[in-house]
Amino acid sequence: MPGGLAAPDYPAILETIFQEVQPLLSKGKVASYIPELAKVPLEQFGMALYCIDGRTFSIGDARRRFSAQSVTKLFALALAYTREDDDLWQRVGKEPSGTAFNSLVQLEYEKGIPRNPFINAGALVITDILASRFVDSEIAMLQFMRQLAADASIDFDMTVAMSELKTANRNFAIGHLIKDFGNLRNPVKTVIESYCRQCSIAMNCIELARATSFLAHYGTVPWSGVQILGRSCAKRINAVMLTCGTYDAAGEFAYRVGLPAKSGVGGGIVAVVPGELAVAVWSPGLDSTGNSLAGTYALERFTTLTSRSIF
Amino acid sequence: MPGGLAAPDYPAILETIFQEVQPLLSKGKVASYIPELAKVPLEQFGMALYCIDGRTFSIGDARRRFSAQSVTKLFALALAYTREDDDLWQRVGKEPSGTAFNSLVQLEYEKGIPRNPFINAGALVITDILASRFVDSEIAMLQFMRQLAADASIDFDMTVAMSELKTANRNFAIGHLIKDFGNLRNPVKTVIESYCRQCSIAMNCIELARATSFLAHYGTVPWSGVQILGRSCAKRINAVMLTCGTYDAAGEFAYRVGLPAKSGVGGGIVAVVPGELAVAVWSPGLDSTGNSLAGTYALERFTTLTSRSIF
Amino acid sequence: MPGGLAAPDYPAILETIFQEVQPLLSKGKVASYIPELAKVPLEQFGMALYCIDGRTFSIGDARRRFSAQSVTKLFALALAYTREDDDLWQRVGKEPSGTAFNSLVQLEYEKGIPRNPFINAGALVITDILASRFVDSEIAMLQFMRQLAADASIDFDMTVAMSELKTANRNFAIGHLIKDFGNLRNPVKTVIESYCRQCSIAMNCIELARATSFLAHYGTVPWSGVQILGRSCAKRINAVMLTCGTYDAAGEFAYRVGLPAKSGVGGGIVAVVPGELAVAVWSPGLDSTGNSLAGTYALERFTTLTSRSIF
Amino acid sequence: MPGGLAAPDYPAILETIFQEVQPLLSKGKVASYIPELAKVPLEQFGMALYCIDGRTFSIGDARRRFSAQSVTKLFALALAYTREDDDLWQRVGKEPSGTAFNSLVQLEYEKGIPRNPFINAGALVITDILASRFVDSEIAMLQFMRQLAADASIDFDMTVAMSELKTANRNFAIGHLIKDFGNLRNPVKTVIESYCRQCSIAMNCIELARATSFLAHYGTVPWSGVQILGRSCAKRINAVMLTCGTYDAAGEFAYRVGLPAKSGVGGGIVAVVPGELAVAVWSPGLDSTGNSLAGTYALERFTTLTSRSIF
Repeated sequence: MPGGLAAPDYPAILETIFQEVQPLLSKGKVASYIPELAKVPLEQFGMALYCIDGRTFSIGDARRRFSAQSVTKLFALALAYTREDDDLWQRVGKEPSGTAFNSLVQLEYEKGIPRNPFINAGALVITDILASRFVDSEIAMLQFMRQLAADASIDFDMTVAMSELKTANRNFAIGHLIKDFGNLRNPVKTVIESYCRQCSIAMNCIELARATSFLAHYGTVPWSGVQILGRSCAKRINAVMLTCGTYDAAGEFAYRVGLPAKSGVGGGIVAVVPGELAVAVWSPGLDSTGNSLAGTYALERFTTLTSRSIF
Repeated sequence: MPGGLAAPDYPAILETIFQEVQPLLSKGKVASYIPELAKVPLEQFGMALYCIDGRTFSIGDARRRFSAQSVTKLFALALAYTREDDDLWQRVGKEPSGTAFNSLVQLEYEKGIPRNPFINAGALVITDILASRFVDSEIAMLQFMRQLAADASIDFDMTVAMSELKTANRNFAIGHLIKDFGNLRNPVKTVIESYCRQCSIAMNCIELARATSFLAHYGTVPWSGVQILGRSCAKRINAVMLTCGTYDAAGEFAYRVGLPAKSGVGGGIVAVVPGELAVAVWSPGLDSTGNSLAGTYALERFTTLTSRSIF
Repeated sequence: MPGGLAAPDYPAILETIFQEVQPLLSKGKVASYIPELAKVPLEQFGMALYCIDGRTFSIGDARRRFSAQSVTKLFALALAYTREDDDLWQRVGKEPSGTAFNSLVQLEYEKGIPRNPFINAGALVITDILASRFVDSEIAMLQFMRQLAADASIDFDMTVAMSELKTANRNFAIGHLIKDFGNLRNPVKTVIESYCRQCSIAMNCIELARATSFLAHYGTVPWSGVQILGRSCAKRINAVMLTCGTYDAAGEFAYRVGLPAKSGVGGGIVAVVPGELAVAVWSPGLDSTGNSLAGTYALERFTTLTSRSIF
Repeated sequence: MPGGLAAPDYPAILETIFQEVQPLLSKGKVASYIPELAKVPLEQFGMALYCIDGRTFSIGDARRRFSAQSVTKLFALALAYTREDDDLWQRVGKEPSGTAFNSLVQLEYEKGIPRNPFINAGALVITDILASRFVDSEIAMLQFMRQLAADASIDFDMTVAMSELKTANRNFAIGHLIKDFGNLRNPVKTVIESYCRQCSIAMNCIELARATSFLAHYGTVPWSGVQILGRSCAKRINAVMLTCGTYDAAGEFAYRVGLPAKSGVGGGIVAVVPGELAVAVWSPGLDSTGNSLAGTYALERFTTLTSRSIF
C-alpha cells in the first residue's frame, strides 16, 4: 500500500459515495449538442473499481452501458501509441490547451499541430493515424476495446454515431483546417465519420474500469499479462490524462480529484491510481465544463476516503 | 515505501546523475532578459534532497546560492494561502495557461483574472494579496523563506531586483491591465517592485529542498512539526504545480519527470515526491521553454532511477 | 469635372503608365495556392477605362481574359444586394477585418458573422444567399456578369474551378465554422463548389471596366440605363470597397490609390471614380499582400496623373 | 463644384439638420470612463462649416467649447508628419484595426507596431515622436492648435487631463507593452501624461472646422496660405481618417457618411469634403461604438442633403 496506508474497505466506500451523490443526480445537464444523447435520463449513477490484483467492486448502474464518447480518446491514443511510439508526438502536442474556445484559434497559430490528443483536434489526428495504420481502423479500434474489456459484445451505437455526424460542423471545420496545414493524410470526411463511430462505442463502468486497468499496471493487462505498452509509455499517457484529460477543467480536476482521468460528454469518467486500480464512474448530468457532475464528485470523495490522491 | 519499493540508494543515484549531466551543462542558455542573470557562468550544477524523515543528500554546487526567481512564486502562493484560504481562487485561476505568448491575450479575454498563480499575471495578484495582508509584505515573505529553510541569512539580492525592475515593461503592462479590470488593490508600481524583490531572493539547493519539504509532508514542516497549511491545501498546491509549474512545458514536464515542480529562470527547480521528500536542483543553462536544461534532465533521471514518478 | 479639373488626356496617360510598369512586371509572384493559376506567365499587363459618357480607352493585354477570382465578390455582393437590400447586413458585417490570419479567429469570436463580404468568409455567406435566392445561382451569377459586361461569351473556367476546389480545405474549414454558427442555409459543399465556380469566371480588362461602370454611375448601367441598384446602395458598395476591398492592405491602398477598388489573386483589380469612370487593370504578379504589384502601381499613377483620388 | 453640382444652401441645410437631431440628443450616453466627462449635460448640439473660400456657417452650440479628446489625434498626426514625413510609418501602421477589444492582442502579435495612429496605441507612439522632436511637445501641440484655429485662447483643461490620468490603467498597459517591444523612446509615464493633456484640449465647432480646413485644401491653410503638409501627405491623412478615424465603426461610418472623419469621446467629430470644406459637429451623447450619436446622424444628413459623399 502506498505510504503504508491501510487497505480501504472498498464496498463500504462505494456505498457511502452512492448515498452522497443521490442529491446531485438531478443537478447536471445532459449533453444537448448530440440529439441522441439528449434523450438519456439524468437520474443514473454507476461506479466500478478494477484492482490490479483482480478484485472488482461496483455499485448502482455499473452494468448499464452508455456512450463512451471522449473516453474512447484515451484508448485511441493507446492504440496509436502501440504503432507509432514517440513519433506520435510529431503530429500532436502534449500540452494543455488553455481555454476551450481556443480550439480553432490555437490550431491556426500552431499551424495545424493540435495541443494534445484529448481535444477534438488532437483526436482527429489520432484517428487519422489509425486510419493510415490499419486496413479497417474502426474494426481495429473495436477489437482493441473488446480485448481490453474482455467482452466481445461491445459495439458501436450507430444511432448515436449518425446523430453526432449530423451536427459535426465544428469538427469538420477543425478537420479541414488541420488538412489545410497538411497534418491529415486521409480525407476529412473519412476521418470524421470514423471519429464519430469511435465515440459512439457503448460500454458500462465495469467494462471501462477493466479496460483502463493496464494503465494502472504499467502498461500490462493485469488479468492476462499481455503488455499493451511499455512502462514508460503508460506513465506518459497517465501524465497527459492528468494535464489534459478533462477539457478546460484539468487544473480544477487535478486539484479536486488528484488522479489521471479522462471524461466524456456521455457522462463517463475513467481514472487511474497507479500501481493499484482503475476506476470508472458514470452519471449523465454534466457540469458547466462538460464533465459528469456527480461523477467528478464521486471521484473526489473516492480519493479523500481512500487517501489515494497522487499529490 | 510507496508500492513496496525498495529504499533507493540516494548518494549513489545523485552521483550517477551528476556524472550524466556534465555534457549538458554547456548546452543551455542563461536568461538574457535580466542583465544581471546573464552574467552567471553556465557550468554549474547542484542538487539536494530533503527527506521527511530528516535525511539530507546533496551533490555538486548544492551550497551555492542563486537567484530563486519564479521558484519563489510557490512560496508566495503558500503564504497567501495561509491568509486567504480558498477565497484566493476568486482572484486567480488554477488552470494551465496554454501558450506563453497568450499572457496578455488571455488576461484580456478573462477580464483580469489570471489563469493560475504561476504565470507572471497570477504572481502579481498574489503579490498584491500579500501587500494587502501584511504591514511589510516583503519582509513577511523573507521571514517566511527564512523560517521554511531554517536559515536567517537568506536575503534579497538588490542588484538583481534593480536589474529586473529596469526591464520590467512587460510586467508593468500586465499589472496595469489587471488594475484596469479591478483585480489589483495596491498601486501597480508597488506591486511590481515588491514582485521583483521577491524574485531576487537568493538560496541554494539545500535550503530550497528543506523549504519545500512541507509540501511533501502534507503541509507540515517535517523537522519542526509546524503546520503551514492543511493537508488538503498542500495537495492542492501540488496539483497546481504539476499542471502549471513549468511555464508552457507543464505537459512535457509531467510526461518526462512526473512530479509536481516549480522552476525559475535563475535555473532552479524544486519538486515534490508526496509522502517522501522534496528535491531541488540548479543549473543556470535554460532550454527553449525557460526551464533549466540540466535540471530537468536530472529530475527525469531521478524519477526513473528511484521509480518515484507519481504516474 | 470634379473641382473644375481639366479633362485628362487618357490615351497619353495610359501610354505613360504602360511604359512605367514594364520594369515591375517581373517583380511580383503569381498566386501559387491554386495550381492552375501558378501556370500564368508573369510578363503581362492590361488596363482599360470605361467612362460613364461611353468612351473606352485601353492598353496592353486589355483584351486577354484572366481569372477574375475575388473581383467577382464585388458582383456577387451587388447581385445579392438586389435581392436582400439592407437585410443583407444582418448576415455579414461591413467593417475591415484587421489582420488576414484572423479569418477563423474573428469568425469564432463574432459567432459566424463574417466581418465583411470581401473576405472569404463573407463571400461564402453571399454565395449562400444567392443559392437560396435563385433556382440556379451559378447561372444567375454568370448571366449577371454577361449582362453587365455586354458579352455573352463570358464563362466559367472549369479547370481553374476544379483546381481551386482541390485545395479548398481552408474554405471548407471556414464554411463549416459558419454553418456551425447557423449562418449558412445550404450544404457547405454546395456553397464551396458554387464559390469556386464563381471565382473562376474569366474576363478581360475591357469587360471588367464596363461591368463595373454602374458603380461609378450611381447604380445605373451608363450605356443601357438599366438601374441595378439605388444610388444609396451603390454608394454603400463603394464605401465597403474602399475600406475592405484589397485584403489586409485596404489602408495602404486607400492611402496610395485613393479609390474604391476590389482585387483578385488572378492579378485583376477594378476601381471606381464616382461620377466619372470605372477602371480595370491586370497583371498576374502579386505583391506580399496578394494584390497585383504592377496593377496597384498603375492605379496609383492613374490617380496622380489625373488628380482623381477621392481624398 | 464637384460633378457640376449646384452650390448648396448651407444655412438652410444646417437649420434642417438642427431640427432633425433634436429627438436624438437624449438617446446617446456620455463617456463614463473619464469621470470629468460624465458630468457634461446630454442635450447639446453644435455644428460648423469652414469652406476653403472662407465662408463659415454654424448653428446651435457651435461656440461652446468641449473636450476634443481623440479628435486631437488627427492634429498630433499632422504635426508629427511635418517632422518625420513618411519615416513615420515605420513606427505605426495605416491599416484598420479590426475589433476594438484587440488593442492589446494585435499589438502583441504585431510586436509593438500599432495598426494605425488613431487607436490609442498608435496615438501613444505619435505622442512619443512629438516628445522626441520638440523641447516641450505639449506646448508645441497647443501652439499648433492655436495657429490652425486662429485663436490664442485655446488651452488644456487640466481637470479633464487629471481625471483621465487617474483612470489610465489601460493606456499604461498599452504604453508599457509598446515600450517592451522597443517602440517608445521616452518614459511611459511621460508619454501618457502628455497624451492625456493633449486629449484635454477644449475647442468649439467653429474652431475645429477652421483647424481642419487645411486637410480640405490639399495641406495648405486656406485663410493664411501657410502650407502645413504637402498635397500628397494631406491626401494620405484623409485616407487614414476614412479607414480608421471612427474606432471600430469605420466601415459603417464610411457607408453612412462617406467622408474622411475623426471622432472623439467628448462627442466631437471633424470631417473633410476634399476641395471644398471642413465640418465639425458636437453632441456629447455617444452611440455604442463611442461616436457621437447625433453628430454621426448630422453628418449623414449633411452628405445626403449636399450630395457631398466621396463615393
